[in-house]
Formats: sequence, C-alpha cells, structure tokens
Amino acid sequence: MKLVTYRNGVEAAARLGLCQGDQVIDVAALAASQGQSLPDTMLGLIDAGQAGLNALRALMTSVGEALPAGTATALANVTLLAPIPRPRKNIFGIGLNYTEHVAESAKTLDTNPDLPREPVVFSKPPTSVIGPNEPILHDSSMTKQLDWEVELTAIIGTRAKRVSRAEALSHVFGYSVMIDVSARDNRRAGQWIFSKGMDSYAPFGPCIVTADEIPDPHALDLWLTVNGVEKQRSNTAKMLFKVDELIADISRGITLEPGDIIATGTPAGVGAGRDPQEWMWPGDVIVACVEGVGTLRHPVVDSTPSES
Amino acid sequence: MKLVTYRNGVEAAARLGLCQGDQVIDVAALAASQGQSLPDTMLGLIDAGQAGLNALRALMTSVGEALPAGTATALANVTLLAPIPRPRKNIFGIGLNYTEHVAESAKTLDTNPDLPREPVVFSKPPTSVIGPNEPILHDSSMTKQLDWEVELTAIIGTRAKRVSRAEALSHVFGYSVMIDVSARDNRRAGQWIFSKGMDSYAPFGPCIVTADEIPDPHALDLWLTVNGVEKQRSNTAKMLFKVDELIADISRGITLEPGDIIATGTPAGVGAGRDPQEWMWPGDVIVACVEGVGTLRHPVVDSTPSES
Repeated sequence: MKLVTYRNGVEAAARLGLCQGDQVIDVAALAASQGQSLPDTMLGLIDAGQAGLNALRALMTSVGEALPAGTATALANVTLLAPIPRPRKNIFGIGLNYTEHVAESAKTLDTNPDLPREPVVFSKPPTSVIGPNEPILHDSSMTKQLDWEVELTAIIGTRAKRVSRAEALSHVFGYSVMIDVSARDNRRAGQWIFSKGMDSYAPFGPCIVTADEIPDPHALDLWLTVNGVEKQRSNTAKMLFKVDELIADISRGITLEPGDIIATGTPAGVGAGRDPQEWMWPGDVIVACVEGVGTLRHPVVDSTPSES
Repeated sequence: MKLVTYRNGVEAAARLGLCQGDQVIDVAALAASQGQSLPDTMLGLIDAGQAGLNALRALMTSVGEALPAGTATALANVTLLAPIPRPRKNIFGIGLNYTEHVAESAKTLDTNPDLPREPVVFSKPPTSVIGPNEPILHDSSMTKQLDWEVELTAIIGTRAKRVSRAEALSHVFGYSVMIDVSARDNRRAGQWIFSKGMDSYAPFGPCIVTADEIPDPHALDLWLTVNGVEKQRSNTAKMLFKVDELIADISRGITLEPGDIIATGTPAGVGAGRDPQEWMWPGDVIVACVEGVGTLRHPVVDSTPSES
C-alpha cells in the first residue's frame, strides 16, 4: 500500500490517506462508512501495528471498487504533506554509506577516505521536515554551500532493542524518500546536526510504501536531478550497511520506536564532490526519486533575513 | 518555582508537581480544588506560556498555607521522574563549551585543541532520558569507556527563530541538570549521537527551576562526584558560549520550540581527560549538582546482554 498524509483543502486537517490509482482514499472515513474504526494519522496507523495494516487491507478487499461517496478525492486535488509531518524524535541519518560517496567526501570535506567500519549516525530535528513541493530554504547569511543528497528512508513499525540482523527487517513499517539537505559550510567540530538539521533541510515523502511491497530494499535505483540535469544515480545495492544492519546496529544501544525514521545515506554525485563544486541556489528545482517508492520535487527559495 | 514530574505510587500516572519545602503539590489537583484549571504535565504547563506560570503563581498566593487535603504529598513519599519524561525531539547537546574541557579533550579524544568559534551542537534522543535515581546502564559488550559530564540545561519556553542574544533568555522556561553520559569508544567518524545517545545516557532532573529564580545562569557552581570523590567542579561563568548565545546561534538555523532542552556543555574533570583515565563501572554511584538548581544521584548497573 502507498500511504500518504494529506490535506483536502487549505484549511482542512491533515488526514491519513491510501493512494489507489489517481485517487486518495480517506482511511478513517472509509472505515467509518463500513461501521469500522481505523486511525486518521500515519503515526496512529503505525502504532496500530500489523493488526492495523491487516484491518486496512481487509477493508479495501471488502469494499472493492465500490468506494462510498466522499471517501476518495483525486490526488491532483489534495495537498500532500510529509507522510509523518511531525516525527516524535530526530530523524536518524546515516553518513558515508555508499562507497563512491565516501571517496568523493574525503576529497573535499573533512571525512576519512577509509570505509567506515560501523554506521556513521547523526540526526535531523523534526523541525527540518517539509512535505512534497514545499520550498527548501536558502539563507545566504548562513550558507553558500547548500548541497543535495537523495536517500531511501526506512520507517520503523515496532519497537526494536538489541535485534539481530535476521529479525531487523520485520521491524520496518515501510519506506519513503528523503533529501538530506546539507549546508557544508556549517559543520561544527565535525558534528553534522546543524549543517543538516536547519529548518526545511529534510524534504520527506511523497508517501510511505509498506514493507510488504518492497521485498528487497537493496535493489532500488535512486537518482536526483537539479534543474532537470541528473546529478546522482545509483542503486541501494551499493549501500555499505544495509537496512537490516543499520537497525541491528543502532538498536544495540538506542531503542528504536514506532515511527522512527532512518535516512540510509546518499550515493555519489553530491555538489561538494564535483569538480568544480556545485551548490543549490534560489530558483533551482530539485527532483529526487527512489524506484518503486516515490518522487520528491522541491524548489529552492531565498529565505535570507532582510537585515542581512 | 521548583517544578517536578512525579508519581504518587508505583501504578500512579505521572503528574506535574510544585515543590514547597518537603512537600510536592499536585498542580492540577490544587487548581481543581479552587475551581480553576491548570495543566497536569510539565509540557502542558510550558505550552501554557507565561499565562500558565502567572496563573500558578496567583493560585499559590491565594491558597497560602492552607493547602486543601489531598493536594500535597511528602517529597519523600513520591517517585520523581525526569521533569520532561519524554522530550518531543532530541536534546540539543553542546560540546567543548568550557575552556579547560576543550584542552583535556584534545589530549585524549579526537577533538581540536583550539577553542571552537561557534557552538558545537550534537543531540541525544528522547529514549536516552532517565529520571532521578534511575540506573545508568553499563553494557560491557558496547563500551569500556563510559564517562560522566555534569551540565546545566536550559528548557525553552517559547518558540525561538532567529532571535537576538538580547531577547534569547526571554525564551527560557527554566533550568535543570543533566549528566551527559558518554561512551567514548562509540564515536563514529566524529559523530557523537551514538556515543552519547544510548538508552539511559541522559539522567535529567530532579526539577525545573523557573527562569525567574535564576537571574544569572552564568554564576552557578556545578560539580560531580563518583563514589563520593569529586571529579568535576567549576562554575557556569566559564562557559565559552553562554545560554543566550546558544539560543541565538541555534535559532539562526533551527527553530527552537517549547519544551526543547539544551544541555550546555561540561567543565573539565571528565574521566577521559584524567591521567590515568577513569571510567564508570557497575556499582558506581554518580552525584551531579548545579547550585540552586538541583542534585542528581544515579547508580551505574550492568546491562550486558546475557549472550555476550
């Protein structure tokens, strides 16, 4: 299933939706029309666990093609938000997780050319999340080196503490796409949260594809374009630490919880690694795609304070 | 006011309390006894803003010494939790924010001996938070270098985006204490979230002292003992970046929100900086204090998985 969080009109509350063809089905409204009850938020559905997903699948099967009036809206007529508009904690980011990106980073950034022996974890605050089509904010008083990074994200479905690699993927609710926007000139003594965590630096969506529809998360092409020109193209097969390893590794020390988001790292082709280096500027349009998961499209807009 | 989150009995729900002498007053229950309404959680009170604090102060004045039956409990008979048991995002940590600690870190860790020119920001997940007296978990399969760091924390009261130093302290709700527990052997390519973010690595409390009672947060002694032996002693006057600078700096890029926690860094005397180096081990008892704010006391217990 392709699940979204959406608004049906500017003033409307955010709702949990299920994409079917070119329509969005209001999950809670559809359930209510059948005398049932299902959550009206993505985190609510994640918290409902496998039982919630099973109930939603059974509902869709029983309703079939005959959607009751008022339960579906044309996708073109709704506003998609980030699938989890407000994560409950910072997003877990993984750095240096594709071989060629380790090499390009070491050339121009302050990272080691050797492949990391363990996942390199950092974080992006909930305030950095934006939904599909929302602007990436370019504050020229803060950065002259705003960079792109397309990434596959895994959304945790069930609590994971000290889980093995073998059981790790059973804790994944689904997958989505994120652009790990990075102001390269805002690293602080090697720490990345500030350079990667500013407002609007986590474009996220457009949907969460449930894990059952992604049997192998390590066989997905992913790419990114700037103003229509391809800058990144790779495949998740090239991840150094696979999704199951990331979950097993993090959960050795940090309990993962339902709704947690892991951005699994970016392949080569970032602006910092190019010769000459390239950066994002107001007016640019960034498109990022992970095969079978979805496509994000974001304009870059100037947000420099007027006093600067 | 000294505000706490507490449980009145093992099975009881967490409540917002106000400490008065050796008693804890149930804020919501006291308000209800006077036909008023006040929040029953710390985040609820923070969200209520200055109006909430004013209402609480007025309530306490009007009630005076005559506390209605059932609204107060002896402090000795309640269980204190972390003042915010579940932060809404990762805690902002500040590294290398006391001069002598920068020097000691550069000797044995991988940090630069030069004073940082900008605050060094990292984060600790909500899952790392523990309340007063709860055990710091020592997993010997993960670390042989578990270290202590006493810190003053500032709790944000109102949304702060691009605020000046001059207005920054007006966004502080209050102050508390945190031990920034750090597994020095778990740094990852310079990133600290994993080494500082594991479960139980953020002892937090015992209370939040409202900002009006700390007119100068940069004139507070702070110290830490291990098994009764003093290891750290300094004063917040020695912070490189003061609380107002930290808020102004972070808010240039990241919007700070009510309930956000900033752990402002630790002075010299950590285990990694000692000769020979010292670490925390199961059986140790750590006591950390910030003058006028409060004292934390935590045992270290073994949590090594049985299969290790």
